[in-house]
Amino acid sequence: MARFTFDISTSLDGFVAGPDPSLEDPLGKGGEQLHEWVLATRAWRESHGREGGEDGPDSELTARSIRDAGATVMGRRMFSGGEGPWESDPNADAWWGDEPPFHHPVFVLTHHEREPLVKKGTTFTFVTDGIESALEQARAAAGEKNVALGGGASVAQQYLSAGLLDELRLHVAPLLLGGGTRLFENLGPDVPHLEQVEVIESPAVTHMTYRVVR
Amino acid sequence: MARFTFDISTSLDGFVAGPDPSLEDPLGKGGEQLHEWVLATRAWRESHGREGGEDGPDSELTARSIRDAGATVMGRRMFSGGEGPWESDPNADAWWGDEPPFHHPVFVLTHHEREPLVKKGTTFTFVTDGIESALEQARAAAGEKNVALGGGASVAQQYLSAGLLDELRLHVAPLLLGGGTRLFENLGPDVPHLEQVEVIESPAVTHMTYRVVR
Repeated sequence: MARFTFDISTSLDGFVAGPDPSLEDPLGKGGEQLHEWVLATRAWRESHGREGGEDGPDSELTARSIRDAGATVMGRRMFSGGEGPWESDPNADAWWGDEPPFHHPVFVLTHHEREPLVKKGTTFTFVTDGIESALEQARAAAGEKNVALGGGASVAQQYLSAGLLDELRLHVAPLLLGGGTRLFENLGPDVPHLEQVEVIESPAVTHMTYRVVR
Repeated sequence: MARFTFDISTSLDGFVAGPDPSLEDPLGKGGEQLHEWVLATRAWRESHGREGGEDGPDSELTARSIRDAGATVMGRRMFSGGEGPWESDPNADAWWGDEPPFHHPVFVLTHHEREPLVKKGTTFTFVTDGIESALEQARAAAGEKNVALGGGASVAQQYLSAGLLDELRLHVAPLLLGGGTRLFENLGPDVPHLEQVEVIESPAVTHMTYRVVR
């Protein structure tokens, strides 16, 4: 059964980005440390067209997430960064390059209509009628594969508190950021129930997987 | 080398107590779920003079923490609960009973002087000259054993941001509380560095141990 999954790297104190994020420093102060573990893996490098990288549990889990996902849903800020009116910026998609790493359909949540953007291996479709519609379209596109939630935190909170997420995979880096963007916030009083699925420790990070119970 | 350690149960979203705590419900809404794993262990039950309980990794880790600790430091609210002026309440220590579970010296941080309180196996000493003094007195009392930080969150934040804690042992329960008292807050910009020591998964909880690096 295809699942709607969310892989997210977080600090031990629960931040997915450090303090003072900006267009130049989208992950905030210290935030890039959250992702060091994945950038070092062979699986991540391969999906980004690079050679080398480390094998081991971090790479295996990353490979599994990439292999199992047939579509991605993401927020508009994740797509184009920053707060500004990206619709008027023809380069707003520049940071995904000519060949984005997804190699499957991506559905971007936004308030502004836009024609699909076709890049090599990845088409970005812009969804203006809400999170359920985006998920529905992504499930249809993914077929028997999973749908991955790309982030960021605000979109994840919406899906989580709406009870639409199936699996939460936290990758907890052994560091404190002391401030920044919290993953778990604004969940409201009706938080979903969780079931612990799997915990895998590697030297660089702890992988914690939970099933969301309805 | 004796360490200053902090064992704390937290929800996956980082709360050590649920929303709306009160004297009747000191752990807030849903907060008692955080401690179910430890209340079920043989080690915890034994230390509280009860029979039975479950063996296994949860009990082994609990037994180790209890065995290795020669003194405890705690905040005033942890000692007597609530916000009120406990000095005028002769029953403020009632909830520790006649034989508190510590069986070693306990140092209580407070702004109000008070004579030591001697109970069976445990003497509570009240410290008014700050967190460093409390730790120093506890280290002297513990000898070659560890000093345990009893909590709560506010005292833990003070010790953590002052760089005085040696080891942080999170016991992460597979649940979201959606609100309440956060463990990691008010740490300031100079957060200490951590080193991942050990991660142990049990069906009920994930035990994550970090060394604080100076």
